Amino acid sequence: MSMFNKIAIIGLGLIGSSVFHAARRRQLGTELAGYDINDDVRLRAKAIGFANIIHDDLASCVQNADLVILCTPVGAYKSVAEQIAPHLKKGAILSDVGSVKGAVIRDVGPFVPAGVHFIPAHPIAGTEFSGPEAGFATLFDGRWAILTPVAGGDPAAVEKLKSFWQGLGSKVDMMDAGHHDLVLAITSHLPHLIAYNIVGTAHDLEKVTEGEVIKYSASGFRDFTRLAASDPTMWRDVFLNNREAVLEVLGRFNEDLSQLQRAVRNGDGEALFDLFTRTRAIRRAIVDIGQDTAAPNFGRKS
Amino acid sequence: MSMFNKIAIIGLGLIGSSVFHAARRRQLGTELAGYDINDDVRLRAKAIGFANIIHDDLASCVQNADLVILCTPVGAYKSVAEQIAPHLKKGAILSDVGSVKGAVIRDVGPFVPAGVHFIPAHPIAGTEFSGPEAGFATLFDGRWAILTPVAGGDPAAVEKLKSFWQGLGSKVDMMDAGHHDLVLAITSHLPHLIAYNIVGTAHDLEKVTEGEVIKYSASGFRDFTRLAASDPTMWRDVFLNNREAVLEVLGRFNEDLSQLQRAVRNGDGEALFDLFTRTRAIRRAIVDIGQDTAAPNFGRKS
Repeated sequence: MSMFNKIAIIGLGLIGSSVFHAARRRQLGTELAGYDINDDVRLRAKAIGFANIIHDDLASCVQNADLVILCTPVGAYKSVAEQIAPHLKKGAILSDVGSVKGAVIRDVGPFVPAGVHFIPAHPIAGTEFSGPEAGFATLFDGRWAILTPVAGGDPAAVEKLKSFWQGLGSKVDMMDAGHHDLVLAITSHLPHLIAYNIVGTAHDLEKVTEGEVIKYSASGFRDFTRLAASDPTMWRDVFLNNREAVLEVLGRFNEDLSQLQRAVRNGDGEALFDLFTRTRAIRRAIVDIGQDTAAPNFGRKS
Repeated sequence: MSMFNKIAIIGLGLIGSSVFHAARRRQLGTELAGYDINDDVRLRAKAIGFANIIHDDLASCVQNADLVILCTPVGAYKSVAEQIAPHLKKGAILSDVGSVKGAVIRDVGPFVPAGVHFIPAHPIAGTEFSGPEAGFATLFDGRWAILTPVAGGDPAAVEKLKSFWQGLGSKVDMMDAGHHDLVLAITSHLPHLIAYNIVGTAHDLEKVTEGEVIKYSASGFRDFTRLAASDPTMWRDVFLNNREAVLEVLGRFNEDLSQLQRAVRNGDGEALFDLFTRTRAIRRAIVDIGQDTAAPNFGRKS
């Protein structure tokens, strides 16, 4: 009575392993089959046991699967799509979890065989940890998953994938890939780029030691280090594959920062106070709709 | 047997009220006396009851106090110092909790009467909440407090203030005010400025609605909104009073960001991967010394 007979997941990191955990929780698939290109990751995934079987080759993993989800860094999609295409079952859904969608359609689309339903997807969920040990069943609970169906796709397949993500715990939205990439550029990609940058700047200062930065990090800096601890390969691929949208929002960020810099230089207290007041409302709205905790300091214990 | 007979705290927000809670926990003062310029805050402070007495005027609050701590926004220090100076007891310690130290010495120093020990201090602790209800006894536990004693000060008074902050739960460091201001510019002031800026940028975009930014904020953006929800008056005063150090580290941040922007534009995956790998180590070091939690997503529940 599962939603799918066989679910195949390619790439067994934080997201791939979490999809397994969450699918198993609600029995969304009869057979859960996994593959990872890394020998060691496959061994660890077998030991953890979140899948029914971990295959040593891509073809066996996707063979006869009703749902195939790409969970590798997006830079690997093209090669994976090319390799699995001949082995995909007619009527199967091919999806993914990548943080960019336009590039995924560009890279995967050409390899999708007739009769296979290609529906790109992106769960807005994650942590700063990576690897098969990092996954857990509740990762998607209450988070949004965005589907970006391609033109001419099968509405029934889209509905089925939507139900799958709801089964994993998510709320589901639909939008076109281009808009997704712009929305995520401001809500995710720019924040990560800025976090990586400021941690790099702090690291490179000569007049303040790294030891001082680390000791006194509870004054704000530590928050940025969490994002800046995210998986380097995944994030490299995001920036290589969402260049235009990232550069667009970065341009806006830079304009605003120049203005703010001028306010600091000129001692313009009114401009500073005005901005610092406006930004409070957004935090409240995020907490109000349950996308963050109301507890001070994120409720952390140390 | 308390460390001080009377402790007077001017300004009953997050930090002032937390000092009271923490001082009471270890009985560091026999009489805890508070004052706030805001009528409503005084009423609420009385209702909460963290002090023995809330005064309606500055003079009565500091009268006969052995320790006076300024906990108002730093922009108010000069006026407060001028008003309390005639009422300070000989031998008293006058300290503060401001996020900048050079400007505090500039503003308060000239009013300190002979025989009063002026020792600026800064606890590296806080939350995004403000007001007398926001304080709690454990805020300073395991966090650093930095003292920036002025030249020619009394070493015994410095030792006593150090013991006081240790009694509140802090670890204590000493440094000169100028270095403090540079260290905090990178660990605290720049992170807040950047957080305020990015939240402002997201708010002002036309192509992405505020509703979308809020809904999909769990992908990174929400972390910045916490810092950007901090008290506007406090932060206005920080930027007005640590201009040079903030502009110096902001200059470095901008240089690094230009380089990163170029790497994105040129599709330089190696440069991106290299930076994203280096920054992970700093996160690990912060968690290792207990200045942040190791739990994924700061251990938050939503």
